[in-house]
Amino acid sequence: MRRPHHVSSREIERKFLIRRLPVEILRSRHFRLAQGYLANERGGRHVRLRRKGGAMSLTFKVGRGSSREEREIKLSPAQFMMLWPATRGRRLHKTRYEIPWKKLKIEVDIYHRRNHGLMVAEVEFPNHASRRKFKPPRWFGREITGEKRYSNVRLARE
Amino acid sequence: MRRPHHVSSREIERKFLIRRLPVEILRSRHFRLAQGYLANERGGRHVRLRRKGGAMSLTFKVGRGSSREEREIKLSPAQFMMLWPATRGRRLHKTRYEIPWKKLKIEVDIYHRRNHGLMVAEVEFPNHASRRKFKPPRWFGREITGEKRYSNVRLARE
Repeated sequence: MRRPHHVSSREIERKFLIRRLPVEILRSRHFRLAQGYLANERGGRHVRLRRKGGAMSLTFKVGRGSSREEREIKLSPAQFMMLWPATRGRRLHKTRYEIPWKKLKIEVDIYHRRNHGLMVAEVEFPNHASRRKFKPPRWFGREITGEKRYSNVRLARE
Repeated sequence: MRRPHHVSSREIERKFLIRRLPVEILRSRHFRLAQGYLANERGGRHVRLRRKGGAMSLTFKVGRGSSREEREIKLSPAQFMMLWPATRGRRLHKTRYEIPWKKLKIEVDIYHRRNHGLMVAEVEFPNHASRRKFKPPRWFGREITGEKRYSNVRLARE
């Protein structure tokens, strides 16, 4: 079988805890996210289901930390509902706020339920140079890029 | 989120090596199968992609041996082609022959490529009573139900 024309994305990103909420969050776009994990291998390889507002998807990821490979497909509601029960006990719920910041976009995740109180900012970069140059805004706290403790796979464990 | 109305299947099956090919195989329905694994957890939980002739699917399974839970969705060709490359190095290829046998159906898998020479029969039962009563036909060899060595996940490891 041949490789598809559609190539996979490779994310370059950094993650930080949040020290205090920025005022910009009050007028930013946001939506609820529910995600659950079908299977997680040691080493970070996993298959995730996600519901983002009305949009449902299945994502394959391999690798951890600042650089990893990702393949995603949209699911119909029927496809999603068939698979979702298999993620019981491996789910997390959060609200994501999207805050434009210079030429980048900061994603702020406010976790719910058992992860209540956790707030994380994620910044995705177009390239490694941009990643290096990045100066975190003042409301960012400690950097947690690559810390397994804050991986969504780990946070979803109930 | 509520459980879907569509409930998952729970397979009751037995697996055997094949001692010799039965004559029935020559006029039986058959098709090529390619399957690859997106992620496998210890304990048998996994997500599989399958192409069966022109039909493509994604299957979640948990548990091993004679009784396990399974959830399956059909994939469009575009969905399948996006995910398939992620199974590189974790694939297997076989031809499946379906042989009606009394009120049951025997599935004979003839493996290809690196598993060339391996032939396995699988019988699925409607209930545990039927499973117990089953008398294997003469062309069956040793029973391998639940033997990890012959699991498809294992055979797909390259």
